[in-house]
Amino acid sequence: MNYSEKAIEMHEKWQGKIRVETVCPLNSRDDLSTAYTPGVAAPCLEIAKDTSLSYKYTRRGNLVAVITDGTAVLGLGDIGPEAGMPVMEGKCALFKAFGDVDAFPICVRSKDVDEIVHTVEMIAGSFGGINLEDISAPRCFQIEERLKKSLDIPVFHDDQHGTAVVALASLINALKIVKKDIKEIKAVVNGAGAAGLAVTKLLMSYGLKNVILCDRNGPIYDGMENMTWAQAELAKITNPEKIKGTLKDAIKGADVFFGFSAPDCLKPEMVELMAKDPCVFACANPTPEIFPEEAIKAGAKVVGTGRSDYPNQINNVLVFPGLFRGALDVRASEINDAMKIAAAEAIASYIPENELTAENIIPSALDKKVSMAVAHAVAKAAIETKVNRI
Amino acid sequence: MNYSEKAIEMHEKWQGKIRVETVCPLNSRDDLSTAYTPGVAAPCLEIAKDTSLSYKYTRRGNLVAVITDGTAVLGLGDIGPEAGMPVMEGKCALFKAFGDVDAFPICVRSKDVDEIVHTVEMIAGSFGGINLEDISAPRCFQIEERLKKSLDIPVFHDDQHGTAVVALASLINALKIVKKDIKEIKAVVNGAGAAGLAVTKLLMSYGLKNVILCDRNGPIYDGMENMTWAQAELAKITNPEKIKGTLKDAIKGADVFFGFSAPDCLKPEMVELMAKDPCVFACANPTPEIFPEEAIKAGAKVVGTGRSDYPNQINNVLVFPGLFRGALDVRASEINDAMKIAAAEAIASYIPENELTAENIIPSALDKKVSMAVAHAVAKAAIETKVNRI
Repeated sequence: MNYSEKAIEMHEKWQGKIRVETVCPLNSRDDLSTAYTPGVAAPCLEIAKDTSLSYKYTRRGNLVAVITDGTAVLGLGDIGPEAGMPVMEGKCALFKAFGDVDAFPICVRSKDVDEIVHTVEMIAGSFGGINLEDISAPRCFQIEERLKKSLDIPVFHDDQHGTAVVALASLINALKIVKKDIKEIKAVVNGAGAAGLAVTKLLMSYGLKNVILCDRNGPIYDGMENMTWAQAELAKITNPEKIKGTLKDAIKGADVFFGFSAPDCLKPEMVELMAKDPCVFACANPTPEIFPEEAIKAGAKVVGTGRSDYPNQINNVLVFPGLFRGALDVRASEINDAMKIAAAEAIASYIPENELTAENIIPSALDKKVSMAVAHAVAKAAIETKVNRI
Repeated sequence: MNYSEKAIEMHEKWQGKIRVETVCPLNSRDDLSTAYTPGVAAPCLEIAKDTSLSYKYTRRGNLVAVITDGTAVLGLGDIGPEAGMPVMEGKCALFKAFGDVDAFPICVRSKDVDEIVHTVEMIAGSFGGINLEDISAPRCFQIEERLKKSLDIPVFHDDQHGTAVVALASLINALKIVKKDIKEIKAVVNGAGAAGLAVTKLLMSYGLKNVILCDRNGPIYDGMENMTWAQAELAKITNPEKIKGTLKDAIKGADVFFGFSAPDCLKPEMVELMAKDPCVFACANPTPEIFPEEAIKAGAKVVGTGRSDYPNQINNVLVFPGLFRGALDVRASEINDAMKIAAAEAIASYIPENELTAENIIPSALDKKVSMAVAHAVAKAAIETKVNRI
């Protein structure tokens, strides 16, 4: 039985991958009078006096909404809000299993930026954080930016920033293997959607100077026509030599390739054009931009993919549960770059130096202790950047 | 320690009365590939082809949103959405403990009817039912009516209909005790808010002909000034003798009193004015319209209150968990009067005839088996009225 068949069978059996459970006892008259009327009036009145007490007396402080409009679900595209639900439930299950974060899926029946933003604003008082998921670009950027401004709880688009954090973690360790400095390397990021743009930004904020962002037609450069505003913004600060043409033109002499793009688009002859000891992260799923054995044959020194059946799996589950765990623990008002970088460094340093090899640059996605390391680092960074509220 | 003190202590300890739990295993690579990528794509694609399959592959079919705007929380009034959360969490905990229904609280940050309706419409695809809670009248009527029209899942305002069902159940058994026929009695319903209006309507749809609805000034009658549209609508079909004045004028010769109003407003001398063997349901909480010992001293034959420390507690928890359990089990598209009446009859007949006494007309709110009896009756009524979809 393949994974599709097994997933259908199991999803029918589970009838939902998460459920709501009762924390308080409800068996005696006393129980009901404490958890519900008349006793419950007391915490209600306390919160009415000071809204921040909702973090003390309700689940809010541990509760994240996983929100989608169903427009960019996995690689399936726009399949609609209800059809996105199995992924959102899976995400919530991962939040719980890996970060002990209570997460709840909300699928919004609209593709309109204003409507989605407004809906989230309307329900945000019930949650301690917002995880945006599988919303297509460039709307995902606008939605995230607007919600970050209007809400005082962390808003995080995982497809962008979760990916960026795990990419940075991988790069930090890969560069240790090949003994290169991020400030001096040349990198190519293929795929100018949510993930590619966010990865480029976070790598630059960590010190990367020379990076070329490519879309399906080739390198993006300042002044190019038909870019989204998000691409145009990055075009100004990337591709310093204004290289034009195709991916093959961009990749010449590059030290690092990150792909968030399409199957098989990185050819072995392109890897051969890269600098000495190149690092290749081919994250398209399930079929990567290049398979690891091919990349290595073509000279790649370190290779990572999104797949669990090869070494160095670039998987967001290393990031989002621990990142929200840390942010919620200190009631952070936002998730800033310092917190993302702290998360990446925690993931990278989770592999002890003496165990670091080209085939072991990133922890296993199944290692639930990674989240705790990430959580501590993120909480510390939140406190250092003064976005904590406890 | 009183209930307020205990509730504060326990709410701080619980930090939320519900939590989200993971149903599926997430320990191996195989687990992740089935519950999440790549396997999860298969149920997503099935739902994309047929939205109704969201009931088969996700939690939707067992999931109810408990929605408030925080404007009419318990007897506390408009305390705001966040402050309403402890009550909403308590409601969700009761849904689970008594009906095995997964319920999730959403507090909407608006008092505007259009905004609340729109927000619920936007998120409705994530749920199998909507329970509106503690929204002030008359907005609660408009919100419910509009959502019933626009959504194809059950929409139920518990403050209205849950109360109406348990009131009808109580009346059915009380009338057995006093050997009267609902078609021939005169009833007074004091309190012309959400509960009073809904109780009046449901009792009438069960056969009650002579009923007078009173607000704080006295009986409501056709043509009276300053009524809400909801009150004006009922004024046309109630108070056939157009009695004016005060509650004292209305209650003369009444067989039944239902109060959803204010503490101590039913005086013993008013009970003395009622017909032979009067039934008094004084549901104001925590201080009833009249205390049972006073009512009985003044001649009442059957007395019920909202309190757990007196016999015959009129408590919605007898209704909503089982009612939604039954509606969800057959995927009912709505909750209609037949289903509500079936629920009331199931609650009433839960007390065997030989155990029925003036002090035992309604099951204990702690008896979790009541919900199952209600669920079966409601599912049957849904099928009989053809609103079921499985």
